[in-house]
Amino acid sequence: MDFSSKLLENAVNEMSRLPGIGKRTALRLVLHLLKQPKENTAYLSEALLHLRNDMKNCEKCHNISDTVLCAICNNPKRNSEIICVVEDIRDVMAIESTSQFNGLYHVLGGKISPIEGIGPQNLKIDSLIKKVANEEVKELIFALSSTMEGDTTNFYIFKQIEKFNIKISTIARGISVGDELEYADEITLGRSIVHRIPFEQSIRG
Amino acid sequence: MDFSSKLLENAVNEMSRLPGIGKRTALRLVLHLLKQPKENTAYLSEALLHLRNDMKNCEKCHNISDTVLCAICNNPKRNSEIICVVEDIRDVMAIESTSQFNGLYHVLGGKISPIEGIGPQNLKIDSLIKKVANEEVKELIFALSSTMEGDTTNFYIFKQIEKFNIKISTIARGISVGDELEYADEITLGRSIVHRIPFEQSIRG
Ligand SMILES: [Zn+2]
Ligand SMILES: [Zn+2]
Repeated sequence: MDFSSKLLENAVNEMSRLPGIGKRTALRLVLHLLKQPKENTAYLSEALLHLRNDMKNCEKCHNISDTVLCAICNNPKRNSEIICVVEDIRDVMAIESTSQFNGLYHVLGGKISPIEGIGPQNLKIDSLIKKVANEEVKELIFALSSTMEGDTTNFYIFKQIEKFNIKISTIARGISVGDELEYADEITLGRSIVHRIPFEQSIRG
Repeated sequence: MDFSSKLLENAVNEMSRLPGIGKRTALRLVLHLLKQPKENTAYLSEALLHLRNDMKNCEKCHNISDTVLCAICNNPKRNSEIICVVEDIRDVMAIESTSQFNGLYHVLGGKISPIEGIGPQNLKIDSLIKKVANEEVKELIFALSSTMEGDTTNFYIFKQIEKFNIKISTIARGISVGDELEYADEITLGRSIVHRIPFEQSIRG
């Protein structure tokens, strides 16, 4: 691309570093900002900077939070005896939107994936095991996506905690195998939480 | 969407104001920034702010420029007797990338579109007509997209300048009717500049 302006070139380059945004899309987005009032660009820039610099992770569940403990962990009406294990904060958002789950979460931050070089030590697995060992957790629900990596992660955690006397379940596979949780419709996802099945039953097939 | 963080909600809302970026895509982009070093978000924010606040439009051709006159208008090797009329700076970039045109540009900033409420007064048409009336312009090339609005705009300008003794041409329609200029391949676009035809011939069909 031949840019007539270094400022433009720079903005397009930075924008196109975002995943799925090519140079042409970046140019279209940047030119849109140029047609809007200056405040709009200021609001966008500030919102991104503010999030990146001031965002916290909940000390208890690792969910994104503006405070030390997130609103879910801080809510005395939630049942702290049931913990739903998810990959990502998008999964927390997806399950919360079903209104079918009243326990707490544990956000792993990903799945074990040897291909991508992600091992157990790169995920929030230790803190989950400590939680199970030390606290009054009665049930763990695995809600990872049902891919090879999700299954591997479930199994790895299962092996670490099977010695403790807790119920371990996985969400019901109403969701097609291989589908990402966050794209499931709310009803299917809600039901899969309600009809969760014991994990040991799920690995038997 | 249920956000656990006001900072996150705010960033997603601002991001999803961009055209073609829905809430889910915005969330994906913002979460990507959270996984990258803080500098990346700083670079992106700064580049956008810097562009929006410091960007100029070339006084002569209305192209985006970092200086009062753009690099094209400032280049003594360009032929100032031929002016190519385009809608948008993306069209300047597309034509420049063909290396087939050595004249100057005039960026209208859009097309006449009664449906979108864009009239001649909203475009840089007056300055084009003044340029033709006062300066040594020998040829005007219309390079608007060949849509109803493009044709209307060409015809409107044509009526204002036909009294002056200049050559008026349009780029050859090697480009499919209705297609946007910026998506044309470089060879087709280059040829359509070289084989431009007199405007009066083009409206006769
Ligand atoms: Zn929390
Ligand atoms: Zn210029």
